[in-house]
Amino acid sequence: REEVASLQQCRPALTPVLAIVQVLKLNEDPKVHGLVLHLPTALLSGRVLNSISPEKDVQGYVMLDRPVCTGAPIVTDNYTFWVILLIVFHLPPLARSQVQQTDVVVLTSEGPLEFLPGWLRPGAVVIDCGSAHFSGNRPPVVCGVLLLTCVHSPSPSDIEISRSQSPKAIELLAREVGLLPDEIEAHGKTKAKVRLSLLDRLKEQPDGKYVLVAGITPTPLGEGKSTVTVGLAQALTAHLKLNSFACLRQPSQGPTFGVKGGAAGGGYAQVIPMEEFNLHLTGDIHAITAANNLVAAAIDARVLHEATQSDKALYGRLVPTVNGLRKFSPIQTARLRKLGIDKTEPGALTPEEIRSFVRLDIDPSGITWQRVVDTNDRFLRKITIGQASTEKGQARQAQFDIAVASEVMAILALTDGLRDMKERFSRMVVGSSRTGRPVTAQDLGVSGALAILMKDAIKPTLMQTLEGTPVFVHAGPFANIAHGNSSVLADKLALKLVGEEGFVVTEAGFGADIGMEKFFNIKCRTSGLRPNVVVLVATVRALKMHGGGPKVSAGAPLPQEYVDEVRLEKSSVCGKGVKNAKSVVWKGHLSKLALAAFSRTDTEAEIDLVCRIARDSGASDAVACYHWSRGGRGCVELARAVRKAAQQPNHFRFLYDLQMPIVEKIRTIAQKVYGADDVEVSQEAQAKIDNYNEQGFGNLPICMAKTHLSLSHLPDWKGVPTGFLLPIRDVRASIGAGFIYPLVGTMSTMPGLPTRPCFYDMDLDPDTEQIAGLF
Amino acid sequence: REEVASLQQCRPALTPVLAIVQVLKLNEDPKVHGLVLHLPTALLSGRVLNSISPEKDVQGYVMLDRPVCTGAPIVTDNYTFWVILLIVFHLPPLARSQVQQTDVVVLTSEGPLEFLPGWLRPGAVVIDCGSAHFSGNRPPVVCGVLLLTCVHSPSPSDIEISRSQSPKAIELLAREVGLLPDEIEAHGKTKAKVRLSLLDRLKEQPDGKYVLVAGITPTPLGEGKSTVTVGLAQALTAHLKLNSFACLRQPSQGPTFGVKGGAAGGGYAQVIPMEEFNLHLTGDIHAITAANNLVAAAIDARVLHEATQSDKALYGRLVPTVNGLRKFSPIQTARLRKLGIDKTEPGALTPEEIRSFVRLDIDPSGITWQRVVDTNDRFLRKITIGQASTEKGQARQAQFDIAVASEVMAILALTDGLRDMKERFSRMVVGSSRTGRPVTAQDLGVSGALAILMKDAIKPTLMQTLEGTPVFVHAGPFANIAHGNSSVLADKLALKLVGEEGFVVTEAGFGADIGMEKFFNIKCRTSGLRPNVVVLVATVRALKMHGGGPKVSAGAPLPQEYVDEVRLEKSSVCGKGVKNAKSVVWKGHLSKLALAAFSRTDTEAEIDLVCRIARDSGASDAVACYHWSRGGRGCVELARAVRKAAQQPNHFRFLYDLQMPIVEKIRTIAQKVYGADDVEVSQEAQAKIDNYNEQGFGNLPICMAKTHLSLSHLPDWKGVPTGFLLPIRDVRASIGAGFIYPLVGTMSTMPGLPTRPCFYDMDLDPDTEQIAGLF
Repeated sequence: REEVASLQQCRPALTPVLAIVQVLKLNEDPKVHGLVLHLPTALLSGRVLNSISPEKDVQGYVMLDRPVCTGAPIVTDNYTFWVILLIVFHLPPLARSQVQQTDVVVLTSEGPLEFLPGWLRPGAVVIDCGSAHFSGNRPPVVCGVLLLTCVHSPSPSDIEISRSQSPKAIELLAREVGLLPDEIEAHGKTKAKVRLSLLDRLKEQPDGKYVLVAGITPTPLGEGKSTVTVGLAQALTAHLKLNSFACLRQPSQGPTFGVKGGAAGGGYAQVIPMEEFNLHLTGDIHAITAANNLVAAAIDARVLHEATQSDKALYGRLVPTVNGLRKFSPIQTARLRKLGIDKTEPGALTPEEIRSFVRLDIDPSGITWQRVVDTNDRFLRKITIGQASTEKGQARQAQFDIAVASEVMAILALTDGLRDMKERFSRMVVGSSRTGRPVTAQDLGVSGALAILMKDAIKPTLMQTLEGTPVFVHAGPFANIAHGNSSVLADKLALKLVGEEGFVVTEAGFGADIGMEKFFNIKCRTSGLRPNVVVLVATVRALKMHGGGPKVSAGAPLPQEYVDEVRLEKSSVCGKGVKNAKSVVWKGHLSKLALAAFSRTDTEAEIDLVCRIARDSGASDAVACYHWSRGGRGCVELARAVRKAAQQPNHFRFLYDLQMPIVEKIRTIAQKVYGADDVEVSQEAQAKIDNYNEQGFGNLPICMAKTHLSLSHLPDWKGVPTGFLLPIRDVRASIGAGFIYPLVGTMSTMPGLPTRPCFYDMDLDPDTEQIAGLF
Repeated sequence: REEVASLQQCRPALTPVLAIVQVLKLNEDPKVHGLVLHLPTALLSGRVLNSISPEKDVQGYVMLDRPVCTGAPIVTDNYTFWVILLIVFHLPPLARSQVQQTDVVVLTSEGPLEFLPGWLRPGAVVIDCGSAHFSGNRPPVVCGVLLLTCVHSPSPSDIEISRSQSPKAIELLAREVGLLPDEIEAHGKTKAKVRLSLLDRLKEQPDGKYVLVAGITPTPLGEGKSTVTVGLAQALTAHLKLNSFACLRQPSQGPTFGVKGGAAGGGYAQVIPMEEFNLHLTGDIHAITAANNLVAAAIDARVLHEATQSDKALYGRLVPTVNGLRKFSPIQTARLRKLGIDKTEPGALTPEEIRSFVRLDIDPSGITWQRVVDTNDRFLRKITIGQASTEKGQARQAQFDIAVASEVMAILALTDGLRDMKERFSRMVVGSSRTGRPVTAQDLGVSGALAILMKDAIKPTLMQTLEGTPVFVHAGPFANIAHGNSSVLADKLALKLVGEEGFVVTEAGFGADIGMEKFFNIKCRTSGLRPNVVVLVATVRALKMHGGGPKVSAGAPLPQEYVDEVRLEKSSVCGKGVKNAKSVVWKGHLSKLALAAFSRTDTEAEIDLVCRIARDSGASDAVACYHWSRGGRGCVELARAVRKAAQQPNHFRFLYDLQMPIVEKIRTIAQKVYGADDVEVSQEAQAKIDNYNEQGFGNLPICMAKTHLSLSHLPDWKGVPTGFLLPIRDVRASIGAGFIYPLVGTMSTMPGLPTRPCFYDMDLDPDTEQIAGLF
């Protein structure tokens, strides 16, 4: 009774911050077994309620039909505890007149789905709890739900929404999803690395359902695949009470300070805290930058040392006498084996063997490895390096790419463990010798160091959505010259954690022609995993564009055509777009599909039209999503459609066979996915292909480097282009990652900063440590 | 009784790993209040004992005089618990014959200090507990002590020693040093960021004693300042039972993969886990790289945009109309104020005002801001950037520096909080306009973004030594062109945490002429803190070199002169060295000094000689340290000397006044610290000085960029050079960090990789995740 008193005493002056401080204090007190919160209406926010530690929140919430009420202790067999009193109006079904009379509304899963933001007074607060918090017992779900408080008119910014929610302690979330304390490494209060030993512990556990979120060919504004991924996971777990995980890519920090929005989702479907997600996260991209650039430094330093030293001097330095002993390091022994030299005594090598051992003989003009930086730095697109006198005339042309374009990132996304990652690093080809032999990271002696630099980055990062459901963030290879999908490891861990009846929702970058195709033929081929459902995100905006709408560009106002409703009788623009979009994915190799029409300002008529055409065209279902404004609740219909689709049988098969010749594989993608008549392979590309065949790389899958703004190679050609030849300008290879990437047109691997980068609006409050202007 | 049984049952098959698994299981069991460990001698390792959670370790250890024993429950007022039985030989005073008869020896503080490794059989194990674990009650010390197990002949590598110890959970260490759970952000199990709110909470707490560890002018091998810093802290806390903190710099990752050893200390005086310390740590240097390079990208992008757009186009883009509204962002308003424009309406500016607002008019040849990378990449020392056609002919010469040379790092080390850091970022001068005006980061609109990127890096990282005593790792500015000292914030936090009677041991980079001088005149001036004791580290090796010994270089075997004992009658070499070394520091402005003679292979006669000469020359004391082979125990004498010195009154004063003209300040340092006759200022340097005076930067302190291998500007001139003029080749400024740095000779800001970088020996075991070859 003492404990109850302490909170009630401070009630008169209770502000949200004071309430949280009080709660935190009582959380620490071992004598307090529960809390009575007697909150004035103004304090009824998720921040206060979520600050209660789960140990104190022993019985969920009690719902009352009076605005204010106090609680009484409840006695069970084992404990005496206090319940938390949530001060709410309990009025299902919600009548419009009643909603308008208050600023606070609480919805349950049984509440009216037809509820719309327009019904509310400006500034009204909606607390959406699902039914979980209204049942007497803990719901049968892996994961506790955070109350989502949706505020409308005016809509808050993404970062305001993110900040309005207090995330669960990451240790709690980890426990909820079934991780043992020793399987996580917390990074602050809201992020944790998850150890790969988990895979071993759960190896007998059957996988959950695997859901891919892809999108139609987008406008330059992006069409919201990430928000659907997050919103769908919120709906599955917080509303349908099914275990789920969202698996997302870590975004590059470069665009964050350039022009792009965040990649944590948006509105009420976000990963929180969004600033942690969008900034350094747990340092994986920094580790990739360090690993990538160590290889680059090793290449040029080696070229210099070989150019300025005799064989004998090189050998003396590479295999030095230490404490009277001279021996090869293991990585040098590996290189000797590769050269066909079987000796283990450094003294036993012949001068010829020494020469072939010490000289990688790298052709400076054949170096394909580039340096990277996680900054949009256009002045590094083409540079000359090695111009200091200390580099003795070895200057050469080079470039920096954005960090996520590094092959190290592609490897991180495709690897299935430390051993495999190390082997892939060893295989990475960084250039060729003057005699045309590929030179690898192992030849440079650097692959062990790379594994050391990447030993923590290989662990996926656990975070949570706005509704407290679990998220893995891991890897984010460039969707352009690489495969653009989040990591195999995160998906595998998540599939084990959610259990057989659970769902893992993962996202493929760019449009379906690129991200989804690569998901199937590269990522799934590597991982051995098969998707159960594909959700294809289409916006009315993008469909209008593909149906012949005017040009859409970032920064400029949207043309009127995109704001006006498309009526049924004038539906050709939109309708053609839908048909165009579906014709792409139907052409392929999928047996079923759920189509999510994502909407912000679209009218009901438009959405109905899109959904009807999609269903008519063979989608297993097509539904509208409102997760941006309503969180998981706005995505429940999609979640139900996905659950239903996942129960149907699956006939997944690859688009092409690895044994096909390289050009055949490229042609198959061009014809079956892009709708091209054929491919047109340049002489340069053909020479490279012949070279790769010779070097034994002919059986790798294909990773097309093509614009994502059109099915063709021309970004402005919208809709479903036909009757074209796809030009293959050049062909390159990421041998460590394990794919060949043909270049279709010019691919920029380094974005630039605009005249007014978004950092102009960014600031940090030195007192509250809060960020302003980050989306 | 059940619980006791469970451990004893598994005894026959008990390996160390199994024992740890058992202990961890019982740690989790709420019914178990203590443990009986019945361990065979082979299992008697710190790893097993340290795996016991502190809650179960309720009464310290019981010491027995029989090799094997079982325990019995003890009942107190409140609990029933089991004591931990440590199976030991209890034989003080330790007799040589007895030591030789066993492989396991336990030392207490009361044990024989004359104990030497040579007494033991190869492979013998020494468990050094201090007296803490042998008393019935918890010792009156902030921090629990980890048992240190010293193994000799053969000496294990640094990483083997680091790995042999199981660090305390970082949450436990944080609690021990008085941090609240909300004041730390764990990064894995062994590192945590500490929030700056602590400073506010403890603002009334008096500071502890402030101890600086500096070194004499070193050999190229380094003389062990870091090990003394760590060993001294271990001695103070684990053996003298005084609160202490060691404050260390974060090392650059570049040299880790090049030629340099680790920076975590060495031998039995290390920060653990040493691989975490030496690799990414908590990402601070990565954040610095990101911040630094965002500024660089912003500079060149701005130059390009100004070169290719009209005033009107620039203004339209810089101050765009968003949703019908046009307004200046706060950072733009700041720039307007700086230009003397008082208007707030974008429409109200005159064309001239618009022109001066939109055009920074940066002179490409006057850009002083460089890009950075945390890799030893010599080919980036001099480069040409902007050669792609998209950069429209704006190519220019530039360079990359090693990341720790960034002004952002210098600011991190000197700042006292978020607000100050943001202001310093705003002031950073990145170049000059064509009319000669300084252009700042604020002019570029980027300072808010920098604060966001650095918001976590500003928090010091908590780690621990091999003996479980606390360490802050924070900032590591280049000791060359910057001031080379760890952060002001870490020192301030630590001084509050240790309390009035406690000690904070911090280190100054390079020799005393550089690191210590800058510690006094830059770091202390900025922070307002004053040192109580300076420990000057001198090795016999370095003293021999200064006394006329032959050249010492990294990688080459040490000349015989350094191995042979210097006898008293032939002491001139060594003796001259000591006198030379002390003459430097005595010249300065210190009232007292403790001299630590650090020894690995030095003979007793040599050490006695050094200590005697040092005391004769005015050191308050001079003692030998054996922390490398013995941990804190080997440094107890130094700790006692420091404690004594700290009780004496202190007459600290700065070497020069800030109001002095720039050249006068430089001259004072050159004459009083280096022993030069005068300075010789080049025309170029003089012009820069005049320019800085004009721009109002004349009152900043001086940060000399000089070789650390000699008191003079010539690295090969050992001993105490006299009769020379110090040439000032050029003068530069770090306005945000707040110092002017004169260049004495050529300073390399980018190390290179040797023919055989140390990464050749590095590897990661994919099964155990253990690193090999990292020192």
